[in-house]
Order: sequence, then C-alpha cells, then structure tokens
Amino acid sequence: MSRRAAFPGLMRARGAAQGSRLVAALPEWVTTVGLLAMIANTGTDAGSRSDLLLSGTVTAAWGFFVASYALRIWSAPKAAARRGVSAAGARRRYVLSASGWIDMMAAVALPAGWLTGLPERDAQLFVIVWALNYIRRAGGLTLLLRVMRRAAPALASVLTVFFVVLLIAGTLSYVFEREAQRQTFRTIPHALWWAITTLSTTGYGDVVPVTLWGRLLAAWVMVGGIVIFALWAGIIANAFAEELRRRDFLRTWDLVASVPFFQTLGAAAMADIVRLVRARDVAAGTVVIRKGQPGDSMYFVVSGEAIVMFDSEAITLRPGAFFGEMALLFGTRRSATVVITKPSVLLVLDIADFRVLAGRRPELIDVIEAEGRRRREANAALDPAQ
Amino acid sequence: MSRRAAFPGLMRARGAAQGSRLVAALPEWVTTVGLLAMIANTGTDAGSRSDLLLSGTVTAAWGFFVASYALRIWSAPKAAARRGVSAAGARRRYVLSASGWIDMMAAVALPAGWLTGLPERDAQLFVIVWALNYIRRAGGLTLLLRVMRRAAPALASVLTVFFVVLLIAGTLSYVFEREAQRQTFRTIPHALWWAITTLSTTGYGDVVPVTLWGRLLAAWVMVGGIVIFALWAGIIANAFAEELRRRDFLRTWDLVASVPFFQTLGAAAMADIVRLVRARDVAAGTVVIRKGQPGDSMYFVVSGEAIVMFDSEAITLRPGAFFGEMALLFGTRRSATVVITKPSVLLVLDIADFRVLAGRRPELIDVIEAEGRRRREANAALDPAQ
Amino acid sequence: MSRRAAFPGLMRARGAAQGSRLVAALPEWVTTVGLLAMIANTGTDAGSRSDLLLSGTVTAAWGFFVASYALRIWSAPKAAARRGVSAAGARRRYVLSASGWIDMMAAVALPAGWLTGLPERDAQLFVIVWALNYIRRAGGLTLLLRVMRRAAPALASVLTVFFVVLLIAGTLSYVFEREAQRQTFRTIPHALWWAITTLSTTGYGDVVPVTLWGRLLAAWVMVGGIVIFALWAGIIANAFAEELRRRDFLRTWDLVASVPFFQTLGAAAMADIVRLVRARDVAAGTVVIRKGQPGDSMYFVVSGEAIVMFDSEAITLRPGAFFGEMALLFGTRRSATVVITKPSVLLVLDIADFRVLAGRRPELIDVIEAEGRRRREANAALDPAQ
Amino acid sequence: MSRRAAFPGLMRARGAAQGSRLVAALPEWVTTVGLLAMIANTGTDAGSRSDLLLSGTVTAAWGFFVASYALRIWSAPKAAARRGVSAAGARRRYVLSASGWIDMMAAVALPAGWLTGLPERDAQLFVIVWALNYIRRAGGLTLLLRVMRRAAPALASVLTVFFVVLLIAGTLSYVFEREAQRQTFRTIPHALWWAITTLSTTGYGDVVPVTLWGRLLAAWVMVGGIVIFALWAGIIANAFAEELRRRDFLRTWDLVASVPFFQTLGAAAMADIVRLVRARDVAAGTVVIRKGQPGDSMYFVVSGEAIVMFDSEAITLRPGAFFGEMALLFGTRRSATVVITKPSVLLVLDIADFRVLAGRRPELIDVIEAEGRRRREANAALDPAQ
Repeated sequence: MSRRAAFPGLMRARGAAQGSRLVAALPEWVTTVGLLAMIANTGTDAGSRSDLLLSGTVTAAWGFFVASYALRIWSAPKAAARRGVSAAGARRRYVLSASGWIDMMAAVALPAGWLTGLPERDAQLFVIVWALNYIRRAGGLTLLLRVMRRAAPALASVLTVFFVVLLIAGTLSYVFEREAQRQTFRTIPHALWWAITTLSTTGYGDVVPVTLWGRLLAAWVMVGGIVIFALWAGIIANAFAEELRRRDFLRTWDLVASVPFFQTLGAAAMADIVRLVRARDVAAGTVVIRKGQPGDSMYFVVSGEAIVMFDSEAITLRPGAFFGEMALLFGTRRSATVVITKPSVLLVLDIADFRVLAGRRPELIDVIEAEGRRRREANAALDPAQ
Repeated sequence: MSRRAAFPGLMRARGAAQGSRLVAALPEWVTTVGLLAMIANTGTDAGSRSDLLLSGTVTAAWGFFVASYALRIWSAPKAAARRGVSAAGARRRYVLSASGWIDMMAAVALPAGWLTGLPERDAQLFVIVWALNYIRRAGGLTLLLRVMRRAAPALASVLTVFFVVLLIAGTLSYVFEREAQRQTFRTIPHALWWAITTLSTTGYGDVVPVTLWGRLLAAWVMVGGIVIFALWAGIIANAFAEELRRRDFLRTWDLVASVPFFQTLGAAAMADIVRLVRARDVAAGTVVIRKGQPGDSMYFVVSGEAIVMFDSEAITLRPGAFFGEMALLFGTRRSATVVITKPSVLLVLDIADFRVLAGRRPELIDVIEAEGRRRREANAALDPAQ
Repeated sequence: MSRRAAFPGLMRARGAAQGSRLVAALPEWVTTVGLLAMIANTGTDAGSRSDLLLSGTVTAAWGFFVASYALRIWSAPKAAARRGVSAAGARRRYVLSASGWIDMMAAVALPAGWLTGLPERDAQLFVIVWALNYIRRAGGLTLLLRVMRRAAPALASVLTVFFVVLLIAGTLSYVFEREAQRQTFRTIPHALWWAITTLSTTGYGDVVPVTLWGRLLAAWVMVGGIVIFALWAGIIANAFAEELRRRDFLRTWDLVASVPFFQTLGAAAMADIVRLVRARDVAAGTVVIRKGQPGDSMYFVVSGEAIVMFDSEAITLRPGAFFGEMALLFGTRRSATVVITKPSVLLVLDIADFRVLAGRRPELIDVIEAEGRRRREANAALDPAQ
Repeated sequence: MSRRAAFPGLMRARGAAQGSRLVAALPEWVTTVGLLAMIANTGTDAGSRSDLLLSGTVTAAWGFFVASYALRIWSAPKAAARRGVSAAGARRRYVLSASGWIDMMAAVALPAGWLTGLPERDAQLFVIVWALNYIRRAGGLTLLLRVMRRAAPALASVLTVFFVVLLIAGTLSYVFEREAQRQTFRTIPHALWWAITTLSTTGYGDVVPVTLWGRLLAAWVMVGGIVIFALWAGIIANAFAEELRRRDFLRTWDLVASVPFFQTLGAAAMADIVRLVRARDVAAGTVVIRKGQPGDSMYFVVSGEAIVMFDSEAITLRPGAFFGEMALLFGTRRSATVVITKPSVLLVLDIADFRVLAGRRPELIDVIEAEGRRRREANAALDPAQ
C-alpha cells in the first residue's frame, strides 16, 4: 500500500526494529509517566518538594504532547503527499480525525485546567484525558467498535428494560422500606441507589432491605440482574462471532491472493482455501519448524523471509514459497529446521484443514506434492548431500 | 403496506421529518417529566411550594395521558378504516391490544392512587407504571421477547435448580450458623436471605457466615452461583443466535425480493444472496461513498433515493439501482461521491461476501459487471467529461 | 409407545385434562406445603400452638410421601406389565431408579431425623430433601445434565485453575495483610475466605485488604475472577449449542417420519425438512390461524386434531394433514380460522424456511400446492359457498 | 506411538490398572498433604507440638519432590531412548521443559524460603508453588491455553478499555467525593481502589460514594463493568467454539483413519464420517449395550476389546469391529449385552447422525447392513441357538 512519511511512521510503525519500536512507544511512556505523576501528586503536601517535582513532571509531559501535536500537524502533508492531497487539506484532515482530536485534547488539557482558576494540583486533574492515548494504541479497538455497533440495537433494548426495572424496583423498595429505614430509604432517589447496586449484583451493603417484602423484592431484582447480564453477554457473543468471521475472511483473502501459487486457482478453490488457512505474523528469529519433531502444519510465505537449514546447506525461502508439506503428505518427522530471518507473514495450513482440503480439492494436494518434489530435486542438484 | 391514519402516525411515525419526530417522542418526554416530578417529590416537605409544583406537574402529565388515551380511542377507526373493520371493532381492538392496556394503565394510575385514600404524594407513587411507556418504544423488544420465549424451558429448568440449591443452602447455613449468630441466622427465612445474596454473588455483607462449615458452604454456593449464571448466559446466547439468524433472513428476503435486478434469479441464487447481503436504513443526507476512498462494499437501493455526484453532473438513483460496484470489481478507489437524499433502505454487499459470491455464482458478477458498464456508458453519452 | 398403567399415569401424565393435571401436580403441592411448614416452624416458639400445627403439617406431608412410595412400589408391576417384566423385577427396577431413590429419601427423611435424637423441630430439618421433588419435575433437566456432562472436562480444568489461583491469592494476601490486620488475616484459612469472596466477585466486605500490595493483589484477583467466570460461560454456551442441535434434530426426525406426507420422500429430502421445521405442542382450544391475518407459517398435524372454520362449514383435520399453505404460496391473508380441538403436536414450517425449502426442493412445493388444490376442490364440491 | 519408559510411565500413565493409578496420583497426594500442613501451620503456636509435626510433614513432602526431581532427571534418557536422543540431551530437554521447571521449583521452594532467613513457618510459605502440580495434571489445560492465546488480542483490547475506564472513573470519583469523604477518597489511588471494586461488581462496601454525582458515576461504572464482563465472555465463548471444533476434528480423524472399515472410503466420505462420529474412552468392565434396551447408537472399536454376550455364547470384538447396528437399522431393541473387557476407545455413531449419514451416504449404510448380516450368519453357523 502507500508508504508512510517519516515522522508518523517513526511514531507508529509496526514491525519496526527494536530501537525504533522503543521510540514508537514513546507517547505511551510519556502518558504513563505523566499520569503516574498526576496521580501520585494527589497524595503529597501542597508546596512540598515532591509536589514541585511531580507537577514539573506533569508539565513536562504536557510539553511533549504540545510539541508532538505541532509536529504532527506540520508533517501531515508529507504523510499524505503521495495521495495527491494539498498541504492544507492534509492538515485539516489530520486535525479533524479521531487521532487529531485525541492529540488536541492531550495538548489543551493542562491549559484548560489552568483556565478554571483552580489550584495547580486540581488543574492537573484534567490531564486524565491522556489515558485515551492507551485506547488509540489498542490493536483490536476497531473490532470492538464494530462489534458494539452491530450489537447496539439489542443492547439498547436491554438497557431500556434495565432502566425500567430499576425505576420500578426503586419505587417498590421505597414503599416497602421507608418505614423501617427512615434514613437510607427516605426518598426514591435514595432507593434507586440501592436498586442499582443490587441490579448490577455489586451489593455494597451500605443500603440493605430489612423488611420481608423488601427482601423478596431484592431476591427478584438480583435474579433479574443476572438475567439482564446474561442477555448482554449473549448479544455480544453473537455480534463477536459474526464480526470475527467477516474480518478473518477479508484479511486472509488478501494474503492468499498475494501468494502466486494460489493465484492460478479459480475463485471457488480460492474461497475454500481462504476458509482453511490462518494468517500469522512471525517475528525475525522465530524457529517455525524444528528438525525431528512431528509435523502438524505447512506454511506459505506471504512476506518476509525464511531459511531452511539442512545439514550441509541453507535454502532461503522468499514470499510465494511454501514449506513443511512433506511431514503432512507422508507423515514423517520434520527433515529440516526452518528459521524466520525477517519479520514475516505466514499462512498456516493446519493438518486438520489440510485433510479437509485433501477431501475437497485433491488437485491442490497434487500440485503441492509436485511442486514440493520439483523444488527438492532442484535443491538436490545443487547439494547432493541433502 | 397499509397507510396509517393521521393521529397515531403523527405520534409514532418512523423516518418522519425532524419536527414531527419531536412530536412523536412527546409521550416519552411527558413520561420523563412526570416521573422525575414524582420521584423528586418524595424528597420535598409536604405542603411546601415545591411539593405543590411537583404534584401539579404529575397531575398535568396524567392529564396528557388521559387525553392521549381518549384521542387514540377516538381515532382508532380512522387508523383501521382501510382494513375494512367497523368503528366499534377497531376501538375494541385498540383497547384490548398491549398498547391499549399500557395507555389505559397510564390513564388510571393516578385515580387508582387517589382511591386508596393515601396522602397525595403517596397516591402519586402509582404513576411508576408510566415507565412502561419506555419499554413500548424500545425497538428490539419483540426480538427480546422471542428470544426469552425460545429460551424459556431451559431457563425455567435452571431456575428450578437455582431454587432448590437456594433452599438446601439456606437450611444448611441455618444449621451451621445458628449457634454462632443467634440473631442473623435465627430462622431459615433469615438464612435464605443470606443464601440469595450469596448465590447471586451480590454479597451485601450484612449477613456473613463465621463458622468453618458455614464458610465452606458459602464457597460452594458462590461457585454454584457462577455456574448457574454461566448456564443462563449460555442458554440465552444460543437462543439469540438462532433468533437473529431467523429474523435477518426473513427481513432480507423481503428486501432482496423487491429489487428488480434480483427478481430474475432462481430461488437458489436468491437464497445465496439473502445470506450474503445486509440491510441498512440510511437517513437523508448521509454520504454513503466518498470520492477517492478505498471501496469495501457495493449497494442496492431498495427504497428511497441516492445521488451520485460526478464532477460535472449528478445522477439520481431510484429503487432497484445499485452503485459502488466498480471499486469491488477493479480494486480502484471510489470515483464519485454518493449521497442519500431521502430516507432509504440499502442492501449492502460487503467485499468479503462479494468475493464469496464471486466464487459461488460467477454469472451474477458477470451481470453486475455488464450492468455497471451499460449504465456507465449511458451516463458517458450524456456527460463525456465523466 | 407403550401405554402407562393407571397409577403412575395419574400422577405424572402429560397432556391430561384439567382435573387430573391438578392431581398430577399433587406431590409438588404437598412438597411446597410441607417445606413451608418446616421453614416457618424455625421461627415459632417450641411447644406453642403454631409449633404444634406446623409440626403436624410436616408429619402429614411425610405420611403422604410414605403412602405414595408404597403405592408406587405396589403399582410398579402394572406399569411395566406390557413390557414382559416380572412383578418382582419391575418393583426392584423402580426402587433402584433415580425416581425411586428420591421417593425413598422423601419417605425416610423424617424418621432419620427422629433417629438422631434431636428435638422434633431440628429433626424436621431433614425433610429439606423433599426439595429434590421439584428437580424431578423440571422438564429440561435431562438436557442440563447432558450439557454439564459434555462440558465437564473443560469445566474441571477451569475449576482446577480457579482452585490454584485461590490458594496462591490466599497465601499472598496472608503475607501482605497479616501485619496490618492481625485478626482477620491471622492464618491462611482466614485469608482463603477473603480470596474466595473476592475471586467470585461476591465481595461481602467483612474482610478487605488495606495495604497497597494487598489491594493490588485484590485488583488482579477480581479481574481473574471475571476471566474465569467468562471461561465458564463460554464453555457452557458451546456445550449447550451442540446439545440443542442434537436434541432438536432427533425429536423432529421422529415427528417428521410419522407424517405420511413426508414418508414417501427420500432420506436426503427428509433430512432437509427435519432441519427446517420446528415441533410445537399445542393445547386444545388454541387458535393457530385467525382469518384475515397475514400468514407467516404453514402447519402439519402430527397428532391430535384441528378444525378449519370456514363461514359455512368446519373441516376436521386429523394427523397427517397440513394447513396454512395458501398464505405462503400466494401471499394472501388467511382465508379461514383454524382451532385445535385436542392437545396436538404440530410441525411448523416458517415462511423463512419455506422459502429456503422452495429454493432447495422445488418438487416438494409442487406437491404441497397440488395437495392443497386437491383438498380444496374436494371441500368445494361439498360446500360451494366456501 | 512411542512407548514410554518405566518410571515416567508409572507416574503418569493413563488407563493404568487400579493399583498403579494410585501410584500415578502420588505427586498430587503429596502436594495436597504438604500444602494442607503448611496452611494449617499458620494457625498453630510457634514451637508447639502441632507446629513441629506440621513442619515435619512439609519437610517430608519437600523430600519427596527433591527425590522425584532427581529420579526424573536420572530416568529421562530411558524415557527418550527410543527416539534416538543422547542421555545428556534427554536430561537437558526434561530440565528445560515446562514440567521440568515446575518440578525444579517444587524442589527448591523450601530451601529458597530458608535462604531468606525468615522464621521456619514463614519460610515454608514458599511451598505454595507446589500448587502448580495440580495445574499440570488438569487434562484440558492445553485446550485452555490455546483458547486464551486465540482470544488474547481481543481480550487485551478489552483490558485496555477496562484500564482506561478505571483511571477516568477513579479520577472523577476523587473529584466528586473528596470533600464529603476526606479519609477514604483522599488521593486518586484511594479512589482507584473504589473504582476497581465497583467496575468488577465486587462491591466490598468499605468505600462507597455518598454524593449525588458520585453515585451517578457509580451507576455508570457498574453498568460498564457488566458490559466489559459480557465482552470478555463473548470473546472467550467464540475462541472456545473454534478451538473445540479444530481439536475434535483432528482427534476423530486419527481414530477413524485407524478403523479398517473406513480406510477403503474416499477422503470426502471420510470427512463426512469424521464430522458425525464421536470418540469415547471406555474403562474395562463398562456395559455399553444392555439386552432389551432401545438402541440409540452404534459403535466402532478403535482399540481395546469388547465381548458380545449372547445367551449361549460370547463373541469377542477386536479393533476394527463394530456393533449395535441392528437396533439402528431395524428399530428393534438390543439383542445382546456388550461388555468392554480392556480399556478401549470406541467411535460412537449416534442415531441422529446415523440418519444424517443415511441421507448423505446411503452406500455406507448398505455396507454396514451387509457386513452386519455376514457376521451374524457366521455367528449363526457356529451357534444355531443364537
């Protein structure tokens, strides 16, 4: 896809080398240090040395976020240059994006606190919005959002039921308990506080029914809370299942389509394969196959590089190659160790799915066998000892 | 389907314009104001100015519900006129419907309170039944009810087990704890109160076992509570999955069947498509496709209207048309922006499902491609700059 | 299947008439009354009039269970006579069955209490075993047991993890808290009590960590508790899904196989239908179809009887007949009301599934259409006004 | 597969005879006794007789684990000999394995405690690591780990959201409550303690909001806690479903492939069967089929041995044989009792799945019928009374 410009790439790149990965995690580290300082500062004496030190740390972190926001605005055109967007357009786009909003809030949090005229340490409480930086990094968040959006109508219905049960339970408990506990149940809002702690099965115990009817009501509210909870879990579980299916299919299709070996296949065979293989990101240095072990999967190299280490020789596998097929075809143990040398993406075909595939598309297995034999012979010509 | 008469349509219409939508939500607003007044009034001094103000608000809200109930009875024949039902029959049908019952209860709640002879503010507690108005509006409630009905036999079995465990745990805790805690465990009903708070993992902490055997029992009751809870969640999750599958299939079939493009297909091909597309309600003004973005789905217009905005011209798409197919066929970016101009229903064919379809029904993709090419050419003839 | 002998049939029959159904529920009523008396008696003064009354009630309920157990043993051969089992064999089989064990325990509970030499009211606590009578009646219990058996290995693994986490959390909390709270955390068993209330998220609050490390540990234990709970829910949800699929298939197959219309079909077509129809028990007097309503399903009569009420005539449908197909075939509204006149079992073919079937097995829809037309013509010959 | 050497086999063998099974469970028994002694010892007076006795028990258990670790290192080459690994290699492999690490930690736990210079009873707290021995034995642990690994990315996202909600809720509650409760909410870390007990719905009740805003916040935090919990349950349920499907398929394929009767089938038919049969481990002495009962499944013997007990004769079934097919084919009751005489693995074909198979692969049912008839005739020739 499109290459990314230097600065955002530096801060956000995936699969980067160890050093640049530390740099990429810098915003998270600054967030952590800044938040810890703000939190710890609520426990110091105002004006003490620790207070000054921690306040200074928070201010320094704020400086970092201001500089980072400015830098990102400045470098936005560079990042978008290749897509034919004007400099001003690229900047406006960044500022209005979700990421831009979070960066902006991080930059204005402290000044906003100062503007309130509160003492310094209270003004600093505003920097809690920095916590949003963590969410931005969380890999599966897009998936979570899609799941919640898919589940939203059903969840909203349950929330309505939850709310109505809450109102009715609160009113009834007020009726049942107000004579016995004139203080804790003296108005319906007080009774609602009991109802929410009970319906969510939190049960602080600061407000507890003592009359017979109040306790019978409480028993039903607890059971109702569990049922509502179970409804929620059921709704979300189903939304997740659908969304995962959709996402895996899409990603795997793109990966399968980029392997030359599969490109010659018809669409139907391709759809079969997409359903069976699983994509896996592998770090450099990983030993995927170890000689002498029993084999339970074969691999296709989508990107990156692997080395097959025979006793006398090492063969480099580039994107498009596959390995590990012999153990599946003939049930033998692994005949060589395979090490990943660059961060790679592999497609894994499990032995279970290999067999399913063998049943459904025998011609593919033929190709794999033939291709494996051909490559082995070519290797053997170069290295008779293999 | 059948058109609705003026009044109920005004109060309940979906997809209505902004103004009439506010009016449609009026019953909910009155409910909210009335309930808030009733709830707040439990905290005022009897006879104070706030009491009078809040009581007046509750009474006013009640007036609204009485008037609303009368109006609905009066307008019922109008709403049903086109279906060939007599005026009296239509009114009886409304009064006996679930909606009619809720409206009736809303109208008689306050007089019922007055009849009890309780002081005004206690009589007003009866209006808590207005909360049912929220439930009536909750969109997915029919689905929830169907799910609960489907899950009912299994849930009832678990509830029986829950109840038996409760009885046995209560009796055992009474035996173990009554010596140590003569007050809180002095009868089995007292012990049952402990058992229900523990089995639901609410754990108020007002009653806690202190003997060794009592605590061992409590540990098992807690674990049992979690298992029962998990059973419930599992049952509901499965009932949901089945019900969602059924509902989506039905709704989508009707929509697909109303798109002329699909009507020429055989039933089997149609069933395939129903499984793959997703229906989506789109508000007027929504930008469905934005020029220059990567494309991940194509759309069929079931009802409503969309405008394709090319640089020099705008093309109106009416029900039956489709758009967004080029990005899927050729992997290019969107070549035009598409805006919805009337509240519409679209069928969305995701890129993942488009590919599945390509594998299973290549002839359909041919048709889409041909149809797309034909329409583009027609457009090109009108607008050579496109 | 085999007919049941008079006595057990009287006590347990399904689908019995109103009167005999009350008799069938007698054991549950006696259980409820007996248990309530025993429970209430823990709150009376020993030797008081209420004590004597409630003790008498418990004793009377016990008498019922003794008589009932004796009756069942006596009538066991009659119930089994048709299966060619000897009288002694039938009795031994009943006594050793799960049902026999529960009946036996119900009969010996009170004497067992008396044998302990405890005061009468404590001896009566033993009758809590009568609660098992409820479980025996719970319809879906066999399903629950099958699900738990299927989920058992995975649940046991999670329970082991739960137990190990409990031990380690208890020991760590003892180390962290024993200095600060010398009383509540004075030994590891005391700390384990805290650990179980926290890991199950019950949280009584009688024992709460106060040190920094104790609270950090508590936070992880709570999160761990939620994850373990979620694991359990996931395991059970999956076991449920599999078990439900198996059970529905089996029951529906038997019902479908008993409808003559389907018996002429090949096994493959039959398997298709079994997957699509749903079985439903319908009480006598139920109105299945109401004239003028839109139709969303058709019905096959497996057993029982239904009456189609046309304006001038009523047609009786016996097992093997089907109805409601016209609304599905032509999209018209229901042309007659159908009432069930005996407790019946119907197979329901939903409109969604009807369409799936139309796609997959068009020949079946032809048969339904032809059969429907034939029957209508036969009716029309009898009743030209129809 | 490869045979195991004497010592590890003795300690870990499955399906071993009663006596050797007790020996195999020895490490668990020693763990239980040792941990109980350590736990009980926290409740004794230092230097008392019980203290000495319990400390001695812990030390003895430690001796067992040291000896056991040494024995395993010593016998490692024997266990691995057949796989062509050198003695030193086998030992190194064991020491570095997960099992080796757990054994090593069990052996060094007590000395590590002594090295800290703490009093004896505190030093003994280190032996809590022995609890890991239970986890090692838990059968489904590999499955649990695979599930958690599969679910890890999504779970991590939810955990991030959980953490961010925690931080924000803690800060807000600090702002709302610090005036009202100067002690319990005096710093953000104190407020975070409230937040975690509420977000996990544990609700100890030691810290409870009392202000209006604090309680409104608490209500949302509780609902948020339930949603996060439901998300977790949904994620894990889906990961479980996928992992179970994969594992069952793999295991069953291997078993089916080892039954000669199925080996002649094509891969597609085999894949069908693998999806339908279920594998079951059966202990020696189990009565699989009882004469005169209705039949609901047929069985294939994968390994072990079964005896069919006719009235006049008993026939031994060896791996590759099947039984129980007559009741399925003709709907009759079981005509003979079948007892397992050696620990066996059976493939069970349920009546539901048998019918599915009949629909999809009628030729298989023909073979089963023919094979069953042939074997019966052979038996009849030997035993005309059968």
